Amino acid sequence: MAEFDLIARIQSRVADRVTRRDDVIVGIGDDAAVLQVPAGMQLVVATDTLNAGVHFPPESAPADIGWKALAVNLSDLAAMGAEPAWCTLSLSLPDNDEAWLDAFLDGFLGLASQHRIALVGGDTTRGPLSISVTVHGFVAPGSALRRDAARVGDDVWVSGTLGDAAAALEQWRAGETGDARLRTRLDRPVPRVALGRALVGMAHACIDLSDGLLADLGHVCRGSGTGSDLDLDSLPASDALMAFANGDARRSLQVAGGDDYELCFTAPSNRLEDVQRLADSVGVQLSWVGRITAKQGVRAFDADALEWQPPRKGYEHFG
Amino acid sequence: MAEFDLIARIQSRVADRVTRRDDVIVGIGDDAAVLQVPAGMQLVVATDTLNAGVHFPPESAPADIGWKALAVNLSDLAAMGAEPAWCTLSLSLPDNDEAWLDAFLDGFLGLASQHRIALVGGDTTRGPLSISVTVHGFVAPGSALRRDAARVGDDVWVSGTLGDAAAALEQWRAGETGDARLRTRLDRPVPRVALGRALVGMAHACIDLSDGLLADLGHVCRGSGTGSDLDLDSLPASDALMAFANGDARRSLQVAGGDDYELCFTAPSNRLEDVQRLADSVGVQLSWVGRITAKQGVRAFDADALEWQPPRKGYEHFG
Repeated sequence: MAEFDLIARIQSRVADRVTRRDDVIVGIGDDAAVLQVPAGMQLVVATDTLNAGVHFPPESAPADIGWKALAVNLSDLAAMGAEPAWCTLSLSLPDNDEAWLDAFLDGFLGLASQHRIALVGGDTTRGPLSISVTVHGFVAPGSALRRDAARVGDDVWVSGTLGDAAAALEQWRAGETGDARLRTRLDRPVPRVALGRALVGMAHACIDLSDGLLADLGHVCRGSGTGSDLDLDSLPASDALMAFANGDARRSLQVAGGDDYELCFTAPSNRLEDVQRLADSVGVQLSWVGRITAKQGVRAFDADALEWQPPRKGYEHFG
Repeated sequence: MAEFDLIARIQSRVADRVTRRDDVIVGIGDDAAVLQVPAGMQLVVATDTLNAGVHFPPESAPADIGWKALAVNLSDLAAMGAEPAWCTLSLSLPDNDEAWLDAFLDGFLGLASQHRIALVGGDTTRGPLSISVTVHGFVAPGSALRRDAARVGDDVWVSGTLGDAAAALEQWRAGETGDARLRTRLDRPVPRVALGRALVGMAHACIDLSDGLLADLGHVCRGSGTGSDLDLDSLPASDALMAFANGDARRSLQVAGGDDYELCFTAPSNRLEDVQRLADSVGVQLSWVGRITAKQGVRAFDADALEWQPPRKGYEHFG
């Protein structure tokens, strides 16, 4: 297939599958999309690229790659508390493999339709496999959740469980078949879109966990001019992670493993019950994991109140 | 440099160099940008990726690559008649070469500041050299120039001169030093932003010439349910192209050579004088090159009114 055929194929799949939105004035097929932001709302824009062999194993199922390419972007919108609306897709492909493209689109458009997101444009080009996605959403003026808004005394919370994706990556690196539950967390991260929107007005700062808790909470603290104390025993772990690793190995995955795409947020301690109620209403586990401090830096403490240093600090990609 | 250092470097360069805009509520450094579209305006979004060895010779100067990565995207906004405002940049780099990154940003941010565009986000990642840019602009509701709006009897116009970039590509392929004027057209295309905006309310259909006149006018005609007759002798050629090629070779470059990033638009024939005046006011050469017909397809005629077939139909990339 030439580029035009690829675009036509994507266009027909989009016509079949994806949400039609009245706010898409001109969609795929012109030089650019024309879009209508709702009156009184601000636009939120995030962009993220996945490269084969760096962000996913080269042999990953194309549907998983499509899913993840959109999911990591939606996770950024979630971290801002935004309502997703539109996306564009730039796809570099080493060859014209129709079956691959169809499966990729199954994953990508499947997640898009779950969130009523319209694919409004993009391009396809020849090159090493690379997927670049830009997502657009809305927030009410002044309500976006930011990294630089944590305040001393805030509670630190995380959604879901931590370290599963990094555990799956370790299993993949070791050449093992691995635990399917962990592998699903790596291949099909679930962006916490509903949670992010519900946190508007409740959370102070928010970030998504792509680089690992220590690194990402570090961004929040640097941006906010604060520090943080983490309680290692409070870090949520899945049953699958409990079965896979113990002690320091598990802690390392939880605080320094990336690719979880959970949200980490801070909220005033007098909102603790509100946050707990929110967990029920959104249907996402929320765990208290620490506190924002005036003292700079992010520190992790064990049950004996001893500071613990992980063997590695941040997430390293496949490459 | 790790990814964070790269982002910090880009961030500091952006702070130094790029236009500050009041409509950027949250810029680089959070999970997403927060932006304010002017009241009553529609958002226009285009995205385009350049891959090394496909869209530019691998040995291209980094400043030229930076320029071109933004220019091809601005050209899409120009073709819609939009006013550019913001962009994001996803950069995949094979290694952490500070000098390369600085030169790349010189080209990218230089063009951005010419158009008062703010770089509001993006990401950097390890991978084969690839640059994915998304640009955002504004149009008044209903005023975007579209591909599907040509009408039978419209004049067909092009800006600037055609075939220069394709000629430079031929010289590069032949291993020649080549004509610097042609090479500049290939490496530093000038997006016709002011022209595109001025065409709103005057042009019916508009497209930018990235794939070659026959292919791109073909998109307009298919979208509009029309055809077109082109007058080969009216196609504008630069002095440099005249010196490089004659006869069929020149015609082929003009109708089938890509990467010119000129605008091709259609306008009612009773606006001919308005279009000519526009050329003066915007300072861009505009040439009448043909007419929109009810008969489908795009045909090119020579001075003897004989239909002429180019040896190749569309633009082929480096790869």
